[in-house]
Amino acid sequence: MTVTKGFASDNNAGVHPRVMEAITAANKGHVLSYGDDEYTLRARERFADVFGKEAEVFFVYNGTAANVLGLEAAAESFNAIICSDAAHINVDECGAPEKFTGCKLLPVPTKDGKLTVAGIKAYMHGFGNQHHTQPRVISVTQATEYGTVYTSEEIHQIAGFAHQNGMLVHMDGARLANAAAGLRTGLMELTGDAGVDVLSFGGTKNGLMFGETVVFFNRELARDFIFIRKQGMQLASKMRFIAVQFEALLTNDLWLSNARHANKMAQLLAAELGKIPGVKLTQQVEVNAVFAVIPAEVIPRLQEKYYFYVWDEGKNEVRLMTSFDTSEEEVRGFAGMVRETINCFVPSSQSE
Amino acid sequence: MTVTKGFASDNNAGVHPRVMEAITAANKGHVLSYGDDEYTLRARERFADVFGKEAEVFFVYNGTAANVLGLEAAAESFNAIICSDAAHINVDECGAPEKFTGCKLLPVPTKDGKLTVAGIKAYMHGFGNQHHTQPRVISVTQATEYGTVYTSEEIHQIAGFAHQNGMLVHMDGARLANAAAGLRTGLMELTGDAGVDVLSFGGTKNGLMFGETVVFFNRELARDFIFIRKQGMQLASKMRFIAVQFEALLTNDLWLSNARHANKMAQLLAAELGKIPGVKLTQQVEVNAVFAVIPAEVIPRLQEKYYFYVWDEGKNEVRLMTSFDTSEEEVRGFAGMVRETINCFVPSSQSE
Amino acid sequence: MTVTKGFASDNNAGVHPRVMEAITAANKGHVLSYGDDEYTLRARERFADVFGKEAEVFFVYNGTAANVLGLEAAAESFNAIICSDAAHINVDECGAPEKFTGCKLLPVPTKDGKLTVAGIKAYMHGFGNQHHTQPRVISVTQATEYGTVYTSEEIHQIAGFAHQNGMLVHMDGARLANAAAGLRTGLMELTGDAGVDVLSFGGTKNGLMFGETVVFFNRELARDFIFIRKQGMQLASKMRFIAVQFEALLTNDLWLSNARHANKMAQLLAAELGKIPGVKLTQQVEVNAVFAVIPAEVIPRLQEKYYFYVWDEGKNEVRLMTSFDTSEEEVRGFAGMVRETINCFVPSSQSE
Amino acid sequence: MTVTKGFASDNNAGVHPRVMEAITAANKGHVLSYGDDEYTLRARERFADVFGKEAEVFFVYNGTAANVLGLEAAAESFNAIICSDAAHINVDECGAPEKFTGCKLLPVPTKDGKLTVAGIKAYMHGFGNQHHTQPRVISVTQATEYGTVYTSEEIHQIAGFAHQNGMLVHMDGARLANAAAGLRTGLMELTGDAGVDVLSFGGTKNGLMFGETVVFFNRELARDFIFIRKQGMQLASKMRFIAVQFEALLTNDLWLSNARHANKMAQLLAAELGKIPGVKLTQQVEVNAVFAVIPAEVIPRLQEKYYFYVWDEGKNEVRLMTSFDTSEEEVRGFAGMVRETINCFVPSSQSE
Repeated sequence: MTVTKGFASDNNAGVHPRVMEAITAANKGHVLSYGDDEYTLRARERFADVFGKEAEVFFVYNGTAANVLGLEAAAESFNAIICSDAAHINVDECGAPEKFTGCKLLPVPTKDGKLTVAGIKAYMHGFGNQHHTQPRVISVTQATEYGTVYTSEEIHQIAGFAHQNGMLVHMDGARLANAAAGLRTGLMELTGDAGVDVLSFGGTKNGLMFGETVVFFNRELARDFIFIRKQGMQLASKMRFIAVQFEALLTNDLWLSNARHANKMAQLLAAELGKIPGVKLTQQVEVNAVFAVIPAEVIPRLQEKYYFYVWDEGKNEVRLMTSFDTSEEEVRGFAGMVRETINCFVPSSQSE
Repeated sequence: MTVTKGFASDNNAGVHPRVMEAITAANKGHVLSYGDDEYTLRARERFADVFGKEAEVFFVYNGTAANVLGLEAAAESFNAIICSDAAHINVDECGAPEKFTGCKLLPVPTKDGKLTVAGIKAYMHGFGNQHHTQPRVISVTQATEYGTVYTSEEIHQIAGFAHQNGMLVHMDGARLANAAAGLRTGLMELTGDAGVDVLSFGGTKNGLMFGETVVFFNRELARDFIFIRKQGMQLASKMRFIAVQFEALLTNDLWLSNARHANKMAQLLAAELGKIPGVKLTQQVEVNAVFAVIPAEVIPRLQEKYYFYVWDEGKNEVRLMTSFDTSEEEVRGFAGMVRETINCFVPSSQSE
Repeated sequence: MTVTKGFASDNNAGVHPRVMEAITAANKGHVLSYGDDEYTLRARERFADVFGKEAEVFFVYNGTAANVLGLEAAAESFNAIICSDAAHINVDECGAPEKFTGCKLLPVPTKDGKLTVAGIKAYMHGFGNQHHTQPRVISVTQATEYGTVYTSEEIHQIAGFAHQNGMLVHMDGARLANAAAGLRTGLMELTGDAGVDVLSFGGTKNGLMFGETVVFFNRELARDFIFIRKQGMQLASKMRFIAVQFEALLTNDLWLSNARHANKMAQLLAAELGKIPGVKLTQQVEVNAVFAVIPAEVIPRLQEKYYFYVWDEGKNEVRLMTSFDTSEEEVRGFAGMVRETINCFVPSSQSE
Repeated sequence: MTVTKGFASDNNAGVHPRVMEAITAANKGHVLSYGDDEYTLRARERFADVFGKEAEVFFVYNGTAANVLGLEAAAESFNAIICSDAAHINVDECGAPEKFTGCKLLPVPTKDGKLTVAGIKAYMHGFGNQHHTQPRVISVTQATEYGTVYTSEEIHQIAGFAHQNGMLVHMDGARLANAAAGLRTGLMELTGDAGVDVLSFGGTKNGLMFGETVVFFNRELARDFIFIRKQGMQLASKMRFIAVQFEALLTNDLWLSNARHANKMAQLLAAELGKIPGVKLTQQVEVNAVFAVIPAEVIPRLQEKYYFYVWDEGKNEVRLMTSFDTSEEEVRGFAGMVRETINCFVPSSQSE
């Protein structure tokens, strides 16, 4: 294996050194399992600092679980969940939401992965009609699967609309840290304060080894969550090793510096690529993702040296993710190779 | 928190140093996520050494998931799963098997947690009758929840009976290592060679941070397992960090030395407790668990200093688990405290 | 087919003439489907007469569905349902309760199919413990699968116990009419007045063609039931044809005369069989079922002429059900054949 | 209730007299329940006449169940089911397919409710990718929810495409009879002969009281269906009363004469409405449904006298269904009232 870096995903990165230190430090002696330990207690206090004392926080293993179990807590099986057509819950979780919750997902077509009240309205029907699933949850991804973000005002509008209609708001925040860094806002401003009821707050993509959280701002939804989590196969026995990772992430704003760095590298990458004739950026670069069209013949050559995924085969659109450990050299090196490879293999590009 | 050791569970222990080293060593550079990496490849090779090249191995996060997803691969929703009444899948998984597989569990009453063909037969009815769930899987726990073990011959008999009846054998091997250590046999001898179709092979209770495996000896059952795992919310993105733990565990027989040590400490504990008037051992000590009746008034006093659980409140029966890091001093210290506390608080015990 | 009557089941009978008349009479013109019709409205008024205006009534197709959907309305997937080991939901519904609700069933061993508070208590544990399913519903069958009945006082006790513990009472009333007839009480006395929260009130076994009801005395549980029913595949389009059957059943106490007759025939059958040497009744005959041990060599000969089922092969115990259309001649004919066949084929019986 | 006819749905109609006669005639004596009776045997023979001896036929209560259970037999929970966005399974079954099968539905946008291979292809991705549900079933509705039909050739093409891709074809044939009548083909030509694997063959909308069938041309899928049906709460105890209805329907082509009549009435209705200025037909009239835009102010006035539904509020599009008992007078009466009402209340219409 000669490729050791790349832009395939922020989950190709390893573990931030401070997180690894926290894990190592927690490895002494016996503590009660399943979260009845001081490490977990301390991590929960960090969460209280960030999301308020009223928020209920639960650790799970991964993002799919955080999403699915949060939705299970918010919806009955006859409910529908409105989300973007690009939503991770709709596209990338192998039907886990349907299988576990029994709900139907109603995917709203979007161009940038962002729901709007106008777009949602087309799916707001059938209420009270026994033949139809009953819309109950609006799920937004922050930042979206296209690397775009909702402003706190936009979330506020969606949440207001949801609540007026007796519905709830779920946020898939696998990359919430990147969104907050990009928007220069706090985490609470984009979540509980904006009307989110239940949040998946991600850590793995921001420097953790594993571990995500389900955060309930609407405490009523948390009432039975310990059972939902266990029945959902997501109760970690050696919980301390998830807890200390989040404690590290929420200490001295490590979450923020990691996210800022990844975002900054994406900005640099976009800037570099944007200068190259033959490359076209296709989405706003608001967090740590760059979407770009690259000439077809160039892509496989780049992939010999760098990990990254083709997002849309038909359009030669690639997705390039940066992470907390992406270096400026790496970005410049990649952009340089894109330029050179285009020059070599796409003759026409020279004259563009 | 002044209590730092105890006998509450082998999952109260931390991570074995060699496992932690492996984790730390794996933390460099980017690798593809979800198991497409060299670490995972290497770990799978270690599994091939132990369980044969034909076995299919999948990593998941925890034991409940390993059990539930293995059963999902083996059974349709109208099937029944025959297990011991003490089985973890029956008692301690908050209904996860029923929720996820849709199956009914048929718990067979046992005294020591061990199924027998005779005991199973009483539940072998209703075949072909549309009103009845169709027995399809026999699930054994090795070592059992009572710290007893099945010999390879006993497993062989159950498996033979299952296969003669068109059924499959699932083994919850959360403590398989302890069973093999106790029986002085290999892992394969107790599993694939004995007729097991699908195995949950545990690591967390034997020195890992997190991570379990589903091992299919019956490869047909593995065909769709990548989808079952993902839909079951158990696909780890940074898979390398599970893989390297198992690689460490299966290198230089770390699994065996860890298990042997835990078992040996349980033997010592049983020997020490067995000498104390007023204490009565209630199960054979074949792995790393000691079940004992201790006078009621003594229990809370012991719990001020040591973690452990009361197994049966009505009988004052406690469960004492040892682990890879239990020390001889700790065992003797506990036994000594039991003796002293009984002497102080149970006057009659002196004359027993 | 030469056998046209028998004692196999009360669902081997056809449709009571007055019910068939009601069906025929309803077959004119168009009415709105799915229950928005006057027939359904009228049937609901009959239900209000019997179960009070506060009760919420929903029609479904069959008894399994009435049970499963009623339980779905009362329980979350992490809940457990306590029932008798002989309960129809536990034994005869092919795992439908587990599949649809996700719940675990906790079967309490019984001899006569009747739960008692003492028997239930052994299963009342694990509350608040995230590893354990949370007992939420106690399900009683009235009359039981063994043809025994709960007095209203017995139901009251169970319901009081349930409610004190924050639990709910479900009644499988597939043969509630027979129980009320046997106890000479009203239907409400045995259900809503005794503390039942949700009832499956059966019709098919008491002279209907098809159709059962879910009756909620606890109206809160009914809130979303129209969606549960539809998602449960139990919303009948031509609902009027279920409704008018129940209207007929609840008019002029047809339910009662049907049930009384069936019960009376069972009493006669028990009396006749009780006189025959070699036959032993094994359960109290309180409704329309007779359980009896009959010499093994006799059973197949009887089955050449009469439908009935062997309940327990090992004991030569048979179950004989009477129905609204069982005739005295039939009972006497069957009893006579039992006597003769025993005389012919069981030599020793003569001297008993 | 003064409205006794209308165009709301073919399930607003009652029961065809010959079906009712068959029901009445079957009401004598006892027969074994759950389908072990001669009536059911005879009905199955009629099915063998129509669909061939190789087809496996199962009776269920209603169309939602026929669809959901047929899909359950064809798909694993991690599969996806491709269907039209207008499909009954997608829109009108309150999420029953998702809840019971665990599958994701992939709705393909259509204008007339008809899938095409080209339309399907856009959803044929993610095969072998563990993050994605695996497309497994293509479900077509025949006739569609818009009253259009697939020719046998069109079904053949879809089935060929499905089978080439290792997929299966499900047909929701709630109105298959109308499609066959409209196309002047046999039932087998449109189903088994065209490559359909599993069919919901409807009766309720074509003159039955209740009852639908699941027909497996792919017998492998039928292997466990008796358990799927029972666990799906769809096993009728007094099965004979479903069976004889289908026997009547399949005798002397009652299914065909009923369907033809309904179709003919729809043609008449379309012809009459087509002449009225201000009314615009919006779909091809190929079976027993007419879709038309009618001036907004007219609709409520018509609904005072006739049952029918507004299909699309935004467009003033109504759906008018005819049935086996729709009369010519009724059609002309309705069309006349449309004309008059438009004349009275839509001044501008006169000059159109």
